[in-house]
Amino acid sequence: MQPPPRAFDPSSFRPQLAALTDWIVAYYEQLPHLPVLSRSRPGEIFNALPATAPELPDPFDEVLADLDQLILPGLTHWQSPNFFAYFPANASGPSMLADLLSAALGVQGMLWQTSPACTELETRMLDWLAEACALPAVFRAAGAGGGVLQDSASSATLCALIAARERATGGSSNELGYAGGLVAYTSSQAHSSLDKAVMLAGIGRANLRKIEVDENFALRPAALAAAMAADRAAGLRPFFVGATVGTTSSLACDPLGELGRLCQRAGVWLHVDAAMAGSAALLPEERGRFAGLELADSYCFNPHKWLLTNFDCCCFYVACRQDLVAALSVTPAYLNNDASASGGSFDYRDWQIPLGRRFRALKLWFVLRGFGLAGLRALLRHHLLLAARFAGWVAADPDFQLVAPVSLNLVCFRYRASDDFNRRLQACVNAEGRLFISHTALAGQHVLRLCVGQAATSDEHVAQAWSTLRQTAARLNQA
Amino acid sequence: MQPPPRAFDPSSFRPQLAALTDWIVAYYEQLPHLPVLSRSRPGEIFNALPATAPELPDPFDEVLADLDQLILPGLTHWQSPNFFAYFPANASGPSMLADLLSAALGVQGMLWQTSPACTELETRMLDWLAEACALPAVFRAAGAGGGVLQDSASSATLCALIAARERATGGSSNELGYAGGLVAYTSSQAHSSLDKAVMLAGIGRANLRKIEVDENFALRPAALAAAMAADRAAGLRPFFVGATVGTTSSLACDPLGELGRLCQRAGVWLHVDAAMAGSAALLPEERGRFAGLELADSYCFNPHKWLLTNFDCCCFYVACRQDLVAALSVTPAYLNNDASASGGSFDYRDWQIPLGRRFRALKLWFVLRGFGLAGLRALLRHHLLLAARFAGWVAADPDFQLVAPVSLNLVCFRYRASDDFNRRLQACVNAEGRLFISHTALAGQHVLRLCVGQAATSDEHVAQAWSTLRQTAARLNQA
Repeated sequence: MQPPPRAFDPSSFRPQLAALTDWIVAYYEQLPHLPVLSRSRPGEIFNALPATAPELPDPFDEVLADLDQLILPGLTHWQSPNFFAYFPANASGPSMLADLLSAALGVQGMLWQTSPACTELETRMLDWLAEACALPAVFRAAGAGGGVLQDSASSATLCALIAARERATGGSSNELGYAGGLVAYTSSQAHSSLDKAVMLAGIGRANLRKIEVDENFALRPAALAAAMAADRAAGLRPFFVGATVGTTSSLACDPLGELGRLCQRAGVWLHVDAAMAGSAALLPEERGRFAGLELADSYCFNPHKWLLTNFDCCCFYVACRQDLVAALSVTPAYLNNDASASGGSFDYRDWQIPLGRRFRALKLWFVLRGFGLAGLRALLRHHLLLAARFAGWVAADPDFQLVAPVSLNLVCFRYRASDDFNRRLQACVNAEGRLFISHTALAGQHVLRLCVGQAATSDEHVAQAWSTLRQTAARLNQA
Repeated sequence: MQPPPRAFDPSSFRPQLAALTDWIVAYYEQLPHLPVLSRSRPGEIFNALPATAPELPDPFDEVLADLDQLILPGLTHWQSPNFFAYFPANASGPSMLADLLSAALGVQGMLWQTSPACTELETRMLDWLAEACALPAVFRAAGAGGGVLQDSASSATLCALIAARERATGGSSNELGYAGGLVAYTSSQAHSSLDKAVMLAGIGRANLRKIEVDENFALRPAALAAAMAADRAAGLRPFFVGATVGTTSSLACDPLGELGRLCQRAGVWLHVDAAMAGSAALLPEERGRFAGLELADSYCFNPHKWLLTNFDCCCFYVACRQDLVAALSVTPAYLNNDASASGGSFDYRDWQIPLGRRFRALKLWFVLRGFGLAGLRALLRHHLLLAARFAGWVAADPDFQLVAPVSLNLVCFRYRASDDFNRRLQACVNAEGRLFISHTALAGQHVLRLCVGQAATSDEHVAQAWSTLRQTAARLNQA
């Protein structure tokens, strides 16, 4: 019988890690010069890979060679300083180290007991961020609430929706299935994860009202109140409002204070999604948009977007952890009143959808200690400055226009021409490879989005992006 | 204004990574000698950590020192060769390297376009494993089905349940909310993730039937058929059966062939969860338990348990990917019939709950190439041999007894004494720290479980576990 391989062998791990480190350092050196959007064609990489796994081990240098030849051309480079599309997905040295450490420790944090440090460091990191962002005291672990790491805002929103559903039905939805008549609300600008959550949770898309927005693309509280009143008059039960601080399209911010008072009066769960914009709460001067958050039942933001922490790392806070645990625990309800609910120690499996969980808090620990809050604030302010500078150029150019208020690090703009022209402009600059921007629809128009949030983006990259956009537009006009 | 920090700085990354590598190598050297189960008390680590994040960066050597002093004592060491509890959570050198690479690349794979290599390597890896495990052709990407990586079997099961719900209701549950009358089935031995899935999906626990098992703890098809008939007679609609290959308690295997034929006749979705046991399908001599899998609509197993690939890595296969995409896509149904559904390229956001996803397929690529299929088979066979050896010792000792058929790498046993004695025996050996075992309830008894699956477990660790158990039992008898 063949002897078993050694799963962790320092004599191979050390040289392989050294080679990989060289590869990573070289990758970051090349990054500013690589075409941002992959030029790969569908099926190209799949077909270039062997049809079956190797029977015997491949030398590591062959794996690295394939990484260069097969994988690299198929990457869209999210860490490129010329990546301005969607929202950023930050990585950083300390975060990479922590992910390696998490992999090496290989612990499971589903229960407190299965690795106490995994749970308690996480609780502490969520408290650190709550403090650093001046979040309401209700979200700290010392009270009835607390924070947990989720993979994404989509999952956090789903957990919030389900906790709201159970609170509204007194737990009977979990037991008997959806009771019927529940209605959820969000703005017409909210993220598609709201639609997905009502589907997954058995609420149904017909029972999600998309409320109209004002001229700044923020939810209109009066319209929400009217919709809730109409539903109540029809015998339905409003139970959940999903508000956004920083919408995906334009970083618009819903008025939390008014929404919170409305929800409290109506006994409706208010969830606030600040996936991207939440990191800006580190900056005292940007905290106005979070006023009223103390009225929310739950809140999430993603350090994996704009806080130098690798995906996945979504901070999800609840004002009453018992609401969450009661909805997600498969322990019978009569056993819930234990240490897990009363503080001291949490079993985080009851705060999320999956059972297993890895040691993700290490990333936040390494990042917060590696950069310090002052360093993170400096990076955020740097991005805000670059975005404002770009917006200034757009506003000053008669051929271009801003199409939404500039919010934080996102500029929504267009060339003063048809939607079709703007689509071609976007396609051209993305195909050329010197930058990557994405688009959205606002007020019926095709709008270009430039978001400054990648860690290495500097003045020169933003200036180059602007110059490329202008030159390409001029070229298209001549053609 | 403070200049922004450099997020990835080779001049600090290289020495920090070198220091961390030394730490990891030293950790693996210490591992066999560390108490497996953490002795930390609730709140101890949380309280030892500062209350707020640092304003300025901490030196990296201070972070490593805190790792030793604060975190290490709070770990339950899942990678210890003396960890025999629950199911294993494998890590390995190649997998750690790939997780570091994934963090460094920092790409998002939610859409094919957002990083084609992230999607296509994943599709290929899922095909590699389907081939290596001789899974039915219906699960390969070349046909109507295909595979995707999920974080856990819990999430895979939830996705399967929701796809089944939508197939049964013609998509109307997603639109209108739960239509009512749907009933799901599983065995009394199934994992709690089934309960959680019916709660999350709005089906309700009252509509999940736990079907009785036979003397080997496998679901009885006749009992399932009777329950379905009774429900149908009562006007209800059977729509989902969750079968298990390798239950959590005893690695019992439900009879897939009979269940599959029953489900096909009834038009009911059959999902098969082989979270732990699925890796054994790499061994031709262990494939009998998977006979009938070609009748399943979906299937999952976790390389992060017993295939040297770090958590999270759950392989989820569907026979008809259109069923899955139709249930989870937030794109309107009339747009679904595009490249994403017809092959060539997939948008994996429509195969899972979250939107974002990182480059997890790298782990499987590095592991499969790093060990080769022959190496992985050798490790599995080694574990099977060690478990069989342990079971032999138990069977030959008049003071101990086996309480379930030995299945794969799990031995369910007890001391021939009261439940209370067995509880004390377990508590003593776990507190002493030389091994960590968990327990279950089978046929109303407190049963000890010893699972051999950690990568570095060898003859001596299993022999030491047996000797510790015998000596501790003798000591308890004298006390």
